[in-house]
Amino acid sequence: MLKKRGLLLVVSGPSGAGKGTVCKKVIENNDNIMLSVSATTRQPRTGEVEGISYYYKTKEQFEHMIENGQLLEYARVYDNYYGTPKQEIYDQLENGTDIILEIEMQGAMQVKKKFPQAVFIFILPPSLNELKNRIVGRGTETIDQIEKRMSSAFGEIKLIKDYDYFIFNDSIEKSADQVMSIVNAERSKVIRYKEEIISIFKKEI
Amino acid sequence: MLKKRGLLLVVSGPSGAGKGTVCKKVIENNDNIMLSVSATTRQPRTGEVEGISYYYKTKEQFEHMIENGQLLEYARVYDNYYGTPKQEIYDQLENGTDIILEIEMQGAMQVKKKFPQAVFIFILPPSLNELKNRIVGRGTETIDQIEKRMSSAFGEIKLIKDYDYFIFNDSIEKSADQVMSIVNAERSKVIRYKEEIISIFKKEI
Repeated sequence: MLKKRGLLLVVSGPSGAGKGTVCKKVIENNDNIMLSVSATTRQPRTGEVEGISYYYKTKEQFEHMIENGQLLEYARVYDNYYGTPKQEIYDQLENGTDIILEIEMQGAMQVKKKFPQAVFIFILPPSLNELKNRIVGRGTETIDQIEKRMSSAFGEIKLIKDYDYFIFNDSIEKSADQVMSIVNAERSKVIRYKEEIISIFKKEI
Repeated sequence: MLKKRGLLLVVSGPSGAGKGTVCKKVIENNDNIMLSVSATTRQPRTGEVEGISYYYKTKEQFEHMIENGQLLEYARVYDNYYGTPKQEIYDQLENGTDIILEIEMQGAMQVKKKFPQAVFIFILPPSLNELKNRIVGRGTETIDQIEKRMSSAFGEIKLIKDYDYFIFNDSIEKSADQVMSIVNAERSKVIRYKEEIISIFKKEI
């Protein structure tokens, strides 16, 4: 049979679409899928754990990782860096583990350049109105911040053209199932296993 | 929400791989998926029903369909024509019904030219040895015919490069589930719905 290689799933979507909750559900339901752990220069918050929440790095360490090409993508947000360490992901994919990378669109496009065989999934809210309700419901953002999010949401949705799959997230459970259908289908893609399939049968002749 | 359009699933594979049984199981399990009915000039056999088994045509009628571009694909096998009428499939896809077209590789490649948005699935036997066991087990073919099938099977498997997905058919139920994962994933492909997704959200602004 075919040696299973892991899939790198890049999941994006506007804030409030629920991508975090969907990814969490996918991981809960599937032992063989893991969430990628980012590196950051920001300070750990209460309850966060090194290597689980983030890999905490100094600015010098992080810039060293950038220079050495050790990151699949990174961004500077205000005074802090955030990024995705490459080697650990590659090792896990090689072991057959699927990895979910939950990142914003600019980061996703950096990944696409370096790792085009990744699977790009865009999580959509059922509507902009519902998106607003969800952000308001969180109660963590000011009215100004909410207005700003709403005005950027449509611009973000237009970036869907660079993704492979879309999911309207009207139910966490259904959306997580849909991610799994995508994972199963992608595992059956001829383009990923063409040579191996032919060589399996060649051995028998 | 998005207006659902049907998917055209083209299913091929070497004789004995079990594509017929897999397709039958998919259709049994899903009300919204139908098997395409072919047109043929061969005589109806006992128990076959017009419009269910085949559309029975005279040679003149069939050649008229070829000339008028009414077939998605066709082949002449010995003295008879077999082909896939186009209009009925297009109508059903437009109504949101998914259609399975179970055809051999040459026909599949004709479909690919005329309808590239179809989904091409290749059903593989678990091994050539198992393929042989299955053909022998049927008890319907002579040793000469079996040898001929086996020697063509590997050549057929090499044609997998022109398909989108492969399924190793070691269990009918699992293979049918895999077809459904592919259907679900393909329904989530951005490329199929890009403009509609953006226009849904545009209306809200």
